[in-house]
Amino acid sequence: MRLRNLREEVLEANLELVRRGLVLYTFGNASGISRKDGLVAIKPSGVPYEELTPEHIVITKLDGEIVEGELRPSSDLATHLELYKHFPNTGGVAHTHSEFATAWAQAGKPIPCFGTTHADYFHGPVPVTERLNASEIAGDYELATGAAICRTFAKLNPDAIPAVLVAGHAPFCWGASVAEAAHNAVILEYVARMAYHTLSINAESGPLAGELHDKHFLRKHGNNAYYGQAKAK
Amino acid sequence: MRLRNLREEVLEANLELVRRGLVLYTFGNASGISRKDGLVAIKPSGVPYEELTPEHIVITKLDGEIVEGELRPSSDLATHLELYKHFPNTGGVAHTHSEFATAWAQAGKPIPCFGTTHADYFHGPVPVTERLNASEIAGDYELATGAAICRTFAKLNPDAIPAVLVAGHAPFCWGASVAEAAHNAVILEYVARMAYHTLSINAESGPLAGELHDKHFLRKHGNNAYYGQAKAK
Amino acid sequence: MRLRNLREEVLEANLELVRRGLVLYTFGNASGISRKDGLVAIKPSGVPYEELTPEHIVITKLDGEIVEGELRPSSDLATHLELYKHFPNTGGVAHTHSEFATAWAQAGKPIPCFGTTHADYFHGPVPVTERLNASEIAGDYELATGAAICRTFAKLNPDAIPAVLVAGHAPFCWGASVAEAAHNAVILEYVARMAYHTLSINAESGPLAGELHDKHFLRKHGNNAYYGQAKAK
Amino acid sequence: MRLRNLREEVLEANLELVRRGLVLYTFGNASGISRKDGLVAIKPSGVPYEELTPEHIVITKLDGEIVEGELRPSSDLATHLELYKHFPNTGGVAHTHSEFATAWAQAGKPIPCFGTTHADYFHGPVPVTERLNASEIAGDYELATGAAICRTFAKLNPDAIPAVLVAGHAPFCWGASVAEAAHNAVILEYVARMAYHTLSINAESGPLAGELHDKHFLRKHGNNAYYGQAKAK
Repeated sequence: MRLRNLREEVLEANLELVRRGLVLYTFGNASGISRKDGLVAIKPSGVPYEELTPEHIVITKLDGEIVEGELRPSSDLATHLELYKHFPNTGGVAHTHSEFATAWAQAGKPIPCFGTTHADYFHGPVPVTERLNASEIAGDYELATGAAICRTFAKLNPDAIPAVLVAGHAPFCWGASVAEAAHNAVILEYVARMAYHTLSINAESGPLAGELHDKHFLRKHGNNAYYGQAKAK
Repeated sequence: MRLRNLREEVLEANLELVRRGLVLYTFGNASGISRKDGLVAIKPSGVPYEELTPEHIVITKLDGEIVEGELRPSSDLATHLELYKHFPNTGGVAHTHSEFATAWAQAGKPIPCFGTTHADYFHGPVPVTERLNASEIAGDYELATGAAICRTFAKLNPDAIPAVLVAGHAPFCWGASVAEAAHNAVILEYVARMAYHTLSINAESGPLAGELHDKHFLRKHGNNAYYGQAKAK
Repeated sequence: MRLRNLREEVLEANLELVRRGLVLYTFGNASGISRKDGLVAIKPSGVPYEELTPEHIVITKLDGEIVEGELRPSSDLATHLELYKHFPNTGGVAHTHSEFATAWAQAGKPIPCFGTTHADYFHGPVPVTERLNASEIAGDYELATGAAICRTFAKLNPDAIPAVLVAGHAPFCWGASVAEAAHNAVILEYVARMAYHTLSINAESGPLAGELHDKHFLRKHGNNAYYGQAKAK
Repeated sequence: MRLRNLREEVLEANLELVRRGLVLYTFGNASGISRKDGLVAIKPSGVPYEELTPEHIVITKLDGEIVEGELRPSSDLATHLELYKHFPNTGGVAHTHSEFATAWAQAGKPIPCFGTTHADYFHGPVPVTERLNASEIAGDYELATGAAICRTFAKLNPDAIPAVLVAGHAPFCWGASVAEAAHNAVILEYVARMAYHTLSINAESGPLAGELHDKHFLRKHGNNAYYGQAKAK
């Protein structure tokens, strides 16, 4: 069996989504990539989480060809692959229908940055894609979803804003690893809840000052980060 | 004891409603039907879930006559029977007072389809019945409730929209089996929560494009479904 | 030790409030009365629930004199006693600061009956008291709270509506026993949540038709009740 | 190892924040002070709660110099120290990004006192700081946050209102001990939720009468308190 470590990381990230209450039944999927092998490991479609083992994880090439695995990959595979192709620093992708992030996606609104919790993880509002048109839906729909995400990031840095809301659908998140992608999905849901409550309290709430947004993002990320314990670089 | 398997499926579906947080105390009830025997198995009325065993499940004919069981059947029995009579592909029915679906029912509003989570399960808005009039309430109330549901589906396909909101009361869901009916009740509550939040974020939120609604419903249902693992047909 | 059974029922009802998420830390209190002895058993003030034993329950006369118990009774004792004196069929009282019922009390609004869940337990809107004036607050405040509740029920039947919202404070519930009082407190919180959501979905939501309200209340209560299993009467 | 008892209290208070659902991942931090030693014990930065032991707690002087501990202290240390310097009766500080209190902070609104739950703990609205300006953010940001809190309390008594909302950030709470600080953080979140719901039910909700606010606060605090069991003074 190839890529055992990556399979285990992908399994663990999928289970983290369950533990944090982000997925219901078989909703959601997370994948990881081995850049040196050019191979992606992704959750199979519609298998109950409590039955998942590393053996169930499906291994595909970047063009979608299955190289190992007896189950169908997640039906959202083509979206994941599109992100790997266009976001070169991405090591993992997580997709959920988590309650509040999905509500923002359904409402077709980006999540504004109202506070430092958001700024710690997302260096700007979390954007929303354009809605797909009829021919995109009729064609290779999951690929078109990925393409719509990439267009949304045409002028944004996916490493600094590792999340997007697909209009009328739900969020996709990513990160340097599949664990980080799942972590970002959990944070996104929390930020989405708090932004919702913030607007309910004060419909005129303004975004965080740009300086404070920068301060918090850079406190956790980049060369001068001073949050957490020092890591070897 | 007749219909042991069906009794166990009915018990399990009732317990699934508890595990998913859809019922409080003795609220809610689920039933299943054996079409070949013309017999329905339903939860007894007002018995605590933690005490329920397959022996407690009440077996009745489609006219409501009890053929096995020492306890009174759920007081909503007549509503279940009406659905079995009019929706011929229905194998199970689940009724809850789950929080958000009930709030939509109390508000007298159908749940619009704002996203693909909804579209995956319900091929259109989840409709709301008309309110019962005084003579319906004074007469065979539970039967009248079932009849109001059937009138609501006069021009809708119950196999494609396996749920309804009874105005001023709560949801009823159904499916090919009692397990599927309970599953649909869980999904309905989730969809009801997200639709609520969607409108709070953006009161002008529009419904999902028809093409996308079709795409998602047909991705999971029908001959060309490609979600989940292939099943024998 | 007197009234062991009543002490155990009171302890159990207090713990039920904890299990159902209605109380935080030492918030809340439930009491029961032995009408033949003219004695009330009530939770002591400010003792952590996980340490409570039947021995801690305080026994008082209807005038508040402690007849058994080494701890101070709940600071709301005088309110409980006032209810026992004026509502002769009441066997137990439960007071919580449960989240949504308290929000309605703080908003100074009665909880309208929007659906059958409410109608099953409360035969009309759950009323809110008038606010206490400065001299009531400065005087015997807890007694004045009880008196305000009784004035609210001057033209209402406390056996048919076993709950009230004290304006700016929180709910009090009661019932034929302390177990029923706690049960009603749980239902009230659920009904309060759903009424809140109902108005958010549709600010013009109207109350349930009177006939349906009667139907549901009488389906569960009174001589012709047919919900649950038959009981000896 | 110095200050073992204080380390254990600080660890326990941090874990209480986790148990009560106030923190996600490594969010949040609590500290305690030994006034006679002039030493502060604080959670290290970014360490998972499930791995924390008393040995991990960092001991610093009031000027921030680390006197014991191999890990970096919480990045919010300077804010904690500023509070200890200016609020002389404070024995502990707790900082969280709890959902509703943070939403009020993000909305830039003080939490009004709508009921007795609030009045039992906070003798007035929970205030919100001014937003920091660009030079405060660019300079010693965490110190500036503490200074902004202290300015907010220029005319308020921090012993009577042991909590603040930092605009665009989140709450800080304090108390006579670190346990009390964490307790106040839990209560604040509860009060923040209920105030939110109160305004949703009735946007015109008015604050609690001053007499009742005083009554409840003084029922639990001060020389004539009569809530809970009598303590040696």
